[in-house]
Amino acid sequence: MSFASGGSQLRVNGDRLLKRIHDLASIGAIDGGGCARLALTDDDRDGRDLVVDWMKQLGLDVTTDVIGNVVGVWNVGSGSPVMTGSHIDTVRTGGKYDGNLGVLAGLEVIERCQEAGYIPTRPLAVAFFTNEEGSRFAPDMLGSLTYVGGLPIEEALDIVGIDGMRVGDELERIGYNGATPCPGFAPYAFVELHIEQGPVLEQRNVLIGAVTGVQGISWTHVTIAGQSNHAGTTPMALRHDPAYVASFITVFLRKMAITMGGNQVCTVGKIDLFPNLVNVVPATATLTLDIRNTDSELLLRAEKDVQQMLIDIAAEEGVTITTRSLARFDPVDFDHRLISLVQDIATQHGHTVMLMPSGAGHDAQMFARVCPTTMIFVPSAGGISHNPAEHTEPKDLVAGADVLLHAMISLAEMKDL
Amino acid sequence: MSFASGGSQLRVNGDRLLKRIHDLASIGAIDGGGCARLALTDDDRDGRDLVVDWMKQLGLDVTTDVIGNVVGVWNVGSGSPVMTGSHIDTVRTGGKYDGNLGVLAGLEVIERCQEAGYIPTRPLAVAFFTNEEGSRFAPDMLGSLTYVGGLPIEEALDIVGIDGMRVGDELERIGYNGATPCPGFAPYAFVELHIEQGPVLEQRNVLIGAVTGVQGISWTHVTIAGQSNHAGTTPMALRHDPAYVASFITVFLRKMAITMGGNQVCTVGKIDLFPNLVNVVPATATLTLDIRNTDSELLLRAEKDVQQMLIDIAAEEGVTITTRSLARFDPVDFDHRLISLVQDIATQHGHTVMLMPSGAGHDAQMFARVCPTTMIFVPSAGGISHNPAEHTEPKDLVAGADVLLHAMISLAEMKDL
Repeated sequence: MSFASGGSQLRVNGDRLLKRIHDLASIGAIDGGGCARLALTDDDRDGRDLVVDWMKQLGLDVTTDVIGNVVGVWNVGSGSPVMTGSHIDTVRTGGKYDGNLGVLAGLEVIERCQEAGYIPTRPLAVAFFTNEEGSRFAPDMLGSLTYVGGLPIEEALDIVGIDGMRVGDELERIGYNGATPCPGFAPYAFVELHIEQGPVLEQRNVLIGAVTGVQGISWTHVTIAGQSNHAGTTPMALRHDPAYVASFITVFLRKMAITMGGNQVCTVGKIDLFPNLVNVVPATATLTLDIRNTDSELLLRAEKDVQQMLIDIAAEEGVTITTRSLARFDPVDFDHRLISLVQDIATQHGHTVMLMPSGAGHDAQMFARVCPTTMIFVPSAGGISHNPAEHTEPKDLVAGADVLLHAMISLAEMKDL
Repeated sequence: MSFASGGSQLRVNGDRLLKRIHDLASIGAIDGGGCARLALTDDDRDGRDLVVDWMKQLGLDVTTDVIGNVVGVWNVGSGSPVMTGSHIDTVRTGGKYDGNLGVLAGLEVIERCQEAGYIPTRPLAVAFFTNEEGSRFAPDMLGSLTYVGGLPIEEALDIVGIDGMRVGDELERIGYNGATPCPGFAPYAFVELHIEQGPVLEQRNVLIGAVTGVQGISWTHVTIAGQSNHAGTTPMALRHDPAYVASFITVFLRKMAITMGGNQVCTVGKIDLFPNLVNVVPATATLTLDIRNTDSELLLRAEKDVQQMLIDIAAEEGVTITTRSLARFDPVDFDHRLISLVQDIATQHGHTVMLMPSGAGHDAQMFARVCPTTMIFVPSAGGISHNPAEHTEPKDLVAGADVLLHAMISLAEMKDL
């Protein structure tokens, strides 16, 4: 078969992809159809073993690096490989598709090419990266961050998880303390297929998201110290009420996000009052601010506006507010040529497609530091993710894999990116 | 000594009062100078035993009723007694003065009259009432409520506490399951001395509060069910965020209280989000609303405004809000003649005095149902109460007891109230 002519008709084997998703999901399965395979646990090891088996069955050169990332390369053609991949670790009550889809679709892409007798000009590679979720070890995206040189390997191995276990020890325990050094080789290009994990595609009735980048994230922990008092005996004018201030901040963030518009999102997901009693003005409140934007300047402006608001409300209410940064990632822009490629392929396949940023972090954002990168999103029912109820229609999973297939073929055939 | 002439110079023995406060506080003493004598515990029994001893040393007729209220009557003169009293149970981390002051000042009033050779026209009585705090058994003010017939004794005895123990069983266990029936006799009048437990007297630099009544209380538990979502991937316009709604409600209550002014106070002291994570729009929020006013109509209006606001914000945000009443007490007005009496006496003693409502509930509010009643407040340093750091200057405690002494004497001499 010539790919210059009829190759564009090639499609993945959907049933095989869905069966692999089903089989991998049976490891660490939990009630409600979800998965619990926290990074570097026994269940993660069992999942890794299964995927490595599949890689080997396809004849890939499988290497494990010093942080436990596994890369399978179909060593044909010449030059640096076109890489796809994602992660197979999950949150504690995760779904079947988050991460897994991207890894298993990569396997399917390679297997389908092999079956069809298509030999790409460059190698194709599929990888899964350690601890993308960050549910057991912080930071999230640990494997891909280390792969691209964003974190020295010694530091990465010394990270201690929520259960007191060390990354290096756990890698050794499950037998994934590989020899391949980090940073790893730079791919020719990187494309990751992932479920959206948000409601936008479904709401707009669009099948394929051509992902333009990843939002910058600013996480802040806020502590408000006021004056605990009797709720009945303390006149309003004499109060220094941390619960009111926490609420004021939460309402401010909502208003700011609406006013800024665009891709600005703000969330207060965690509030804790002390002593948290019906008839006591609290002594303290803590809350977290999650502020995201795809635009660096706008993210900075939002952070600045919040800081000024905190100063103002502290003075107004007579409370003490202290803040601590929990995480800060600048926005990532993906490669415009790869984004256009995804749009074109989706359109050629007769799919609706839209440009969209990713609100969540992904391994692809790390690869954007070292090679042209983009992502392909497929819809998440109800926008639900990190939940056993996470669902994407089978035909959408398969359509996404087909777009990935042709993106990888096109990239492999490019002379000069 | 004639009380028609020189009696107004009579003053309590301040040292003796302070020593009794000190001695009672040594039972159930906790770090920081506070007390833990939860109702009907061993420590409560030891405190009761000490106060009963003191009552008997003064030759009072001491009776214990079926809910464990203890009344000591100095049986002189004729007619129904002028009663004072309060409670000696405390919250888990309480102070020395809350409740105890009123009981021990009552003892001191009687002892000082006896020493001075003053025989009142009516009997004087001092009482302490079971479980005023409500920290172990709900409702609070259980003893005085039952005394005035507000709760059938069978129901009162069957109440089960936070530790699974039954009021009736615990009364029997500590030996305070008395024989005197409830409802008890109606006093001629009731006056209770208490620390303010709020900051108003201190802030205004006034020594004596002549208490005009007790605020009505409306406690509501609010549950908000929204849609849990990823904080990064969910556009603002698609959110149904219970944390935002809980905060909106909290800010609304603050604004409403300020706008209504007067004695309106509103507090949100308890907020719980689920799952309460930095990067997750919560699925649910619960919070409590504490709304108080001295005026029945205004309290009703505030409750109505809040109900309408809840309907509006639920519709606007697309969340489901359900409410449950936790407690509802109408405002209590004290007797204007007794209020004036307290003002006059304080002024005669050269003290600053102001009219003020009580923001907290007290045993006196139950007696307002059956006889002319008022209260006397003395300042609480920093407005702090229900805390080991609770403090009132010794001279202020003594000044309050002197006002109580003369209020009781004046009431005992009245022919017709």
